[in-house]
Formats: sequence, structure tokens, C-alpha cells
Amino acid sequence: MSPPIYLDYNASTPVAPEVLDVMVRVFRDVHGNALSGHAFGRAAREVVEGARAEVAALIGASPDEIVFTSGGTESNNAAILGVAEAAAARGRHVVISAIEHASIDLPCVALSARGWGVARVPVDGSGVVDPRSVEAAIRPDTVLVSVMHANNETGAIQPVAAIARSAKAKGALVHTDAAQSLGKVPVSVDELGIDLLSIAGHKLYAPQGVGALYIRRGTPFVPSQLGAGHQGNRRSGTETVALDAALGAACALAAKELTSRRAHLQAMRDRLEEKLRAGVRGLVVHAGDAKRLPNTLYAAFPGVDAIDLLARVDGVATGSGAACHSGVTTPSKVLTAMGVAPELARATLRLTTGRSTTPEEIDRAAQLLLAALR
Amino acid sequence: MSPPIYLDYNASTPVAPEVLDVMVRVFRDVHGNALSGHAFGRAAREVVEGARAEVAALIGASPDEIVFTSGGTESNNAAILGVAEAAAARGRHVVISAIEHASIDLPCVALSARGWGVARVPVDGSGVVDPRSVEAAIRPDTVLVSVMHANNETGAIQPVAAIARSAKAKGALVHTDAAQSLGKVPVSVDELGIDLLSIAGHKLYAPQGVGALYIRRGTPFVPSQLGAGHQGNRRSGTETVALDAALGAACALAAKELTSRRAHLQAMRDRLEEKLRAGVRGLVVHAGDAKRLPNTLYAAFPGVDAIDLLARVDGVATGSGAACHSGVTTPSKVLTAMGVAPELARATLRLTTGRSTTPEEIDRAAQLLLAALR
Repeated sequence: MSPPIYLDYNASTPVAPEVLDVMVRVFRDVHGNALSGHAFGRAAREVVEGARAEVAALIGASPDEIVFTSGGTESNNAAILGVAEAAAARGRHVVISAIEHASIDLPCVALSARGWGVARVPVDGSGVVDPRSVEAAIRPDTVLVSVMHANNETGAIQPVAAIARSAKAKGALVHTDAAQSLGKVPVSVDELGIDLLSIAGHKLYAPQGVGALYIRRGTPFVPSQLGAGHQGNRRSGTETVALDAALGAACALAAKELTSRRAHLQAMRDRLEEKLRAGVRGLVVHAGDAKRLPNTLYAAFPGVDAIDLLARVDGVATGSGAACHSGVTTPSKVLTAMGVAPELARATLRLTTGRSTTPEEIDRAAQLLLAALR
Repeated sequence: MSPPIYLDYNASTPVAPEVLDVMVRVFRDVHGNALSGHAFGRAAREVVEGARAEVAALIGASPDEIVFTSGGTESNNAAILGVAEAAAARGRHVVISAIEHASIDLPCVALSARGWGVARVPVDGSGVVDPRSVEAAIRPDTVLVSVMHANNETGAIQPVAAIARSAKAKGALVHTDAAQSLGKVPVSVDELGIDLLSIAGHKLYAPQGVGALYIRRGTPFVPSQLGAGHQGNRRSGTETVALDAALGAACALAAKELTSRRAHLQAMRDRLEEKLRAGVRGLVVHAGDAKRLPNTLYAAFPGVDAIDLLARVDGVATGSGAACHSGVTTPSKVLTAMGVAPELARATLRLTTGRSTTPEEIDRAAQLLLAALR
């Protein structure tokens, strides 16, 4: 029996073979602590700094603006709490969207518990934040605005540049969670005009357990992880040399193949969408009229219980809601925020393509899904 | 030219070949998100839970008491802040030792800034904490005592079991940082009688970027990293499947070879110590009369500038102070706490052996050091 067809790349990507090669080579050859003064330490530092430059290059940043972290959750936590703590004297209010990942939302809940104000800006029926709503939510004491670059469920790309313009004009700092967009569409910190940006390795063909936080030079920031003062005292913890190298390699790979990767992701996604539209009466594609990530198809099969469907379709591995929510099967927060009825939410599958997805996989997945629906 | 002889295993260990094999296999074959409901997710969960059991087994814990983290710094931060936040209603006082790692000390500084009391218990001239001093420092409002199991510089093993007994009798919780001891000497959470214990992968032949925190069942604990609620809501962030597998494999390897590894580490350390004692008049071995880690030789060469010495001895890679302090070369905090004079501290090298250290390496290292001293 062949393995199931993996169409859950927004939940986690495999490590790209090219990236794995780099990482294994570093694990084999470079095993110093990057703080050590001797040759092993110097070799480790060289690897880390090379990787930092590769990450920076993908988003148009300077290497010194990149802080390696343990992943997207840490980056998001650190961005919210690091800026909040650093800027608290100026104000105690943050603005986020209603569709942020829990790793953005929960630190804001923690801020609320400490007396901060938190505004959650809604999205429209296509899952998109209106920059005017963000602007209206910004107060004189707002220190930070955080709106994700692309949503993990719908793939809807948010108007971050417009949001950043108005937020910056009002004196607030701007963060965006680019975990899902990086490596799928171009991401430039200057075009977006943001101050902080989160990167998650395992959405980008790098390993689970490494990520980065871009912090624009001069941004007030207090580190969350405390210790021996690594990375310019922005994140303590022994530098994870091989993991950093892997993230760097994944960013370099993304930079090299972005145009073709993007076209491939979209061709595969569109092929699947077309086949499902042809076979399913009344298929609803969430955020279908929004600017979407090229790889994401978030579609409702009216009248179907998606979880039940997936349990019957062994051959297709995908999600029925956000992957990242501890097995809880309540209608997704994102769909709820979009005003999607609970029964349609429960009929929704998230099908996401990857750089190694093949037309044969798409055809087989469509066949399996359509057969199960009959 | 042969590469330098690595005698800095307390700073970072290479990944053991057996561990690397396991990790690479998982990176190649298992690439799901452990939260996903499909076959890839199930495979990922199986790997993670297998690894959790291996970590637990090494310290005599139950698998559900193990939380994977990004490393020792995160584990230490989370232990201090997680218990403090959870137990704040009962009291706002913690007791640590004067020789804790910065990742313990700085969270306590942060607690001080929030009005907590922090007592730092001194060490004697051998770098050992007196359990009676800890007992005397415990107040009715003390919620946590944290004393490291073995010091990273001197290798001095602390009387954690005695400390835990008196702390528990007075109603405080007890944490120990076992980053340096695990895999070198037996570590049992029940024999130590502690409630929390930190593990750092890269001191144990697992990769940099993974660690664990043991949290005894029933211990009040608030997670530091917030998000989708992974690991029983004790640490959010996508499970790092291959890294967890590597830590599990490293723990299994340590369990399997602990007796022989310990003997080997000590034979190599003692061989080096003997040669240096024979060749250096007035060699001072710090903590030489304490119970020490079998691999650690922290020795002062009177009249020598250790940093200058290391700069001249290319062939031996080791540290002149704690590895983990951002290139700052002030006399080590640990030696200062022991009452060692600054000039003797500056004459001190830390030479630490590993599982793959050979007698030939030791002999060559001794030869190179002695030649440079002449």
C-alpha cells in the first residue's frame, strides 16, 4: 500500500533534502559552542553568522536584525511580550486581528491580565482585515499592532503594508507573523514596512525547532529568554548551530526557487480546486475571492462532516481545521470570525500543497475524496 | 595539521553518531505535525512519546512528567518563572545558590524587579553549597529552592538530596539544573527528591536546540511559552519530532553506557590531571576535594594568564572560564563565590573530557599545554 498523499504542508513541511544535507554536515563537522574562543567556537560562529545572513537576505533585512529562536511560537510570544515590556512606559495598548494564531493571541490575553488594553480587529467574509478598521482601533497609547501576513487556514493574505503605514503614522510599532507566507510568496520587511516579523522553520522546509524573529534596528525590545546573553542579548540560549544552518539553507533555497515554487504550488492547488469544483455540487472555497497563498485550498463540502470524511479517506492526509489546536474540533476560530456558519465550518477541509507535490498526487487525492463523498 | 583536541565537553558535546542516525532517520521518514489527526501526525506522536519515555527512564520519572523544551536555558527559565507564577499566592520568595547559571539567576533578578525576595546561598572554598545554609535561608513564604546538581565550571556536585529534604519539610518546591550531571553520573528524581529538573540536550550528545524539563506530577506550574497548548499545555510550540527523538536516543545511550562512560571520563580526566600535576609546580585544582563530575578538571596554573595561554596553544580547545558568558573575560562568578583570588581565577583553565576522548588526545594535550607553559 502506498503512503497517504500529504496535503497538509501548512501544518508542517518535510525538511527539504538540500536542507537536511547541510544540517547533517554541520552536525557531523561543527560541534562547538558558538561562544567559545577556540577554533571549534569560531567555526560554529561562522556557520551561525552565515545562516543569519541567508535568513536576512530572504526578507531584505540586515543580518544583525535576525534573532534565531526555537520556532514560530517563540518568535510570536517574544515579539508581543518583548515590545510590550520595552514600550510599556509609552502606553499599554495593543491591536491585533481576530484571526491571529494562539501564540499571538494568548500573550495578549496575558497582557490583558496585567491591565493592558487589547483590541481585536475583525475580518470580512473573505477572512481579510480592513486596514481602516485597524487604523480606527489604534489609540494614542497603542504601542504595537500585530497582524499576520497570511492566514494559516484560509491562506488569505492580509494588507500588512497598508496597516503598517497607518500604524507607523500613529506612532505604533508593527509586527507580522509571516510563518505561512515566507517561502510561498515574496516577503520584504521594507515593502511591508513592519518592525518585527516572525519566521517558523517547519513551514519552510527547515526543521521543527528553529525559527527567527526579525527585529528592525532600533526597535525597543526586551528579551524573553534570559541567560548568558547570546545574540546581542536578544535571546539567551546556546546557539543552535546546525538548526540555524538549516534555516539559513531553507531560506536560501526559498530565495532561489521562489518564482518556480510559487507557480508550482499554485498549479497543484488550482488543479485540485478545479477537480473538486467539477465533482462537488456547491463547493465553497473560503477566501476564494481574496488574495490567497498559492498553495492553500480551504473548501467546504456542504452537508459533509469533514472529520468523518477524513477518517474514511486514509489515502489523503490533511486537516479539517487549524492543525495547531490540540485536537479540539470546535469550528475554527478563523471561520467563525469570517461569519461562516458552524455546519459549513464542520464541512471544511484544508488542503495545502508543497514543493514536492505532484500532479499524480493531486489526481489521486481528488479521486479518493470524490469517491468518499459519493 | 590535525584538528585541535577538543576538551570543552562541558560547553557543548558533539552529537553522538548513534543519536545522529536516529535523528536523520526521523527527519527523512517522519514529517508530520504531531497534532495532526492523520497517519503522518500519528507517526510523529509515536516518535515523540517514545522519546519522552526514554528521557523519563534515564531519571526515573514517568513520561507524562517530561516536557520537551528548546534547551537548558528555556528549561531553567520556565522552571523558575513557571513555579513562581503558579505559587505566587502562597509566597513570593525563592532561594537559589550563588553559583547558578545565568538562566536561573536572571529570571530571579526579574522576580526581584516584581517585588519578590531572592536569597542567594553562598558556597564554600570547594564550590559546594551547605544544606544548612539553604535551610537557614528558607522562609515561610519561600515557594521554590533551586540549586544546580553539578556546577558547569568546577564540576562540584551539590548536596541536592539533603537540600531537597529540608526544603520539602518546610513546604517549598525544589528545582535542580542537571544540565551538566545528566549522562555523567546517575541522576534519579526520586533519590534527589526534587520536583523539577532541567535537561540540556547539547551537554548530553544530543543536538543544540532541544532539552527537557521534568515536572513532578501535581507540581503547580504555569507555562512560559504560550500558543496552541501542546504537551498538556505545559509548553506550546509544534513538537520538534526529530529533535525529541534525538534527545530520547541520547538518554537511552547514556542509560546504556553510563557505568563505562563514567569510568572512561574519569580515567581520561585523571590521566590529564596527573600529567599536569607532575609538570606544573603548584597546580591548583578547584573543587579538587569535593565530589566532582568525573570529566571536569578546573585547574589554575599560578602566574599564567589562561586566556593568553589558550591563544598560544592552538592544539587544545578548551575554556578559560564558564563557556557560556558572551566572551566576557572577568573572573568567573563561580570562582569569585568560592573566594578564589582574581589572579588565580585568571590563571584557570577548564578541561573537560568526553565519551570519545582518547588517551592519545590526553597525552598530546598535556604535552602541548606543558610546552606552552615553559
